[in-house]
Amino acid sequence: MIDHSTDISRIRSHAERSVVERAAEFLAAGLVAHVGIVQDGQPFVLPMNYQFNAGEPDKLYLHGGLSSRLMHHLGTGAPVCVTVTLVDGLVYSRSALYHSTNYRSVVCFGTARIIEDQVTKNVVLEQMIRRYFRGRTIGQDYFAATEAELSSTSLAEMKIEHISAKMREGGPKGPFDADPRAAGTCGVLDLPRIDAGVALPNSRTN
Amino acid sequence: MIDHSTDISRIRSHAERSVVERAAEFLAAGLVAHVGIVQDGQPFVLPMNYQFNAGEPDKLYLHGGLSSRLMHHLGTGAPVCVTVTLVDGLVYSRSALYHSTNYRSVVCFGTARIIEDQVTKNVVLEQMIRRYFRGRTIGQDYFAATEAELSSTSLAEMKIEHISAKMREGGPKGPFDADPRAAGTCGVLDLPRIDAGVALPNSRTN
Repeated sequence: MIDHSTDISRIRSHAERSVVERAAEFLAAGLVAHVGIVQDGQPFVLPMNYQFNAGEPDKLYLHGGLSSRLMHHLGTGAPVCVTVTLVDGLVYSRSALYHSTNYRSVVCFGTARIIEDQVTKNVVLEQMIRRYFRGRTIGQDYFAATEAELSSTSLAEMKIEHISAKMREGGPKGPFDADPRAAGTCGVLDLPRIDAGVALPNSRTN
Repeated sequence: MIDHSTDISRIRSHAERSVVERAAEFLAAGLVAHVGIVQDGQPFVLPMNYQFNAGEPDKLYLHGGLSSRLMHHLGTGAPVCVTVTLVDGLVYSRSALYHSTNYRSVVCFGTARIIEDQVTKNVVLEQMIRRYFRGRTIGQDYFAATEAELSSTSLAEMKIEHISAKMREGGPKGPFDADPRAAGTCGVLDLPRIDAGVALPNSRTN
């Protein structure tokens, strides 16, 4: 069970943006996990591809190289924080300080372990490919990983113990932004949605 | 001076992707800083808007609320790691394990301090607006921050002591991807570039 209420994951800034009930949806849509660890008191934040399955809401899978310092550290069961952010728009206001960003983000706290079992590694790899690349079919579009390939890669399973999610949407909220007759300009620059699995028109194929 | 050579920022996984000479370019293009800190041995990674000026390559500015736990922590001079990642494409291969992501990323290590000076806060805020929203003009498009507004926000200046940058570009590199007659499909799904300052067509204005 994920604990949504403890201090570690409590949202203090802009608490009105808290949407923890949408955390799984955002994790399913994200492309990059920013993985935070501590070594000798020093924080490290590294970007990684990851897998999240709707049926396992308290798990996150991180994929890395065998020799990776990060993967080795995760294997020790040390605390880890994984943050996934999707930027949806740039919000411009009639007031300098009310320029903002529309976004969806999730912050996960927990610990991880390395998955040694080749069958599980293969299953998660397949799930990850399907999440990032909707419609690709194993055996038709690509070959399954060989035993040797699976052995050359590392997969960590993170158990999510605490989670929080935030979202900002909509227009600017400055003191003059509701009045279309006020001086200046305001609005939202919507960014293209690049959620995982969204079909995009500009694919090129070898 | 930024140290590019020490152990803290040495790239171990895919060292051939190291492009530290492009770190400033990537920082100037990014939209979100994933800011990592340590509290009581626990890593925290939080997304923030930030400012980077080409003329100050060893500085990064982080903008947050006055009451923010993160900003308060940064003000103590504790070690911080800031990572900026831009995802450029999804790479699909004829081999499961060679599916990948094209990206640009920068990892910065250092410490920060809170900027109290209102003039400096205002200057950085203006620079940040210009970086995120190219072409907006103060006095015409929006009003400058008032003293009261500036006092209600917090700005941290991070001194970058170590930095690394990585990039992946190009097509898939699986064992069958160079042969167009091989079974399966491979290629790159290029994602729309949403670098800071890039003009986008779908802007809507109030």
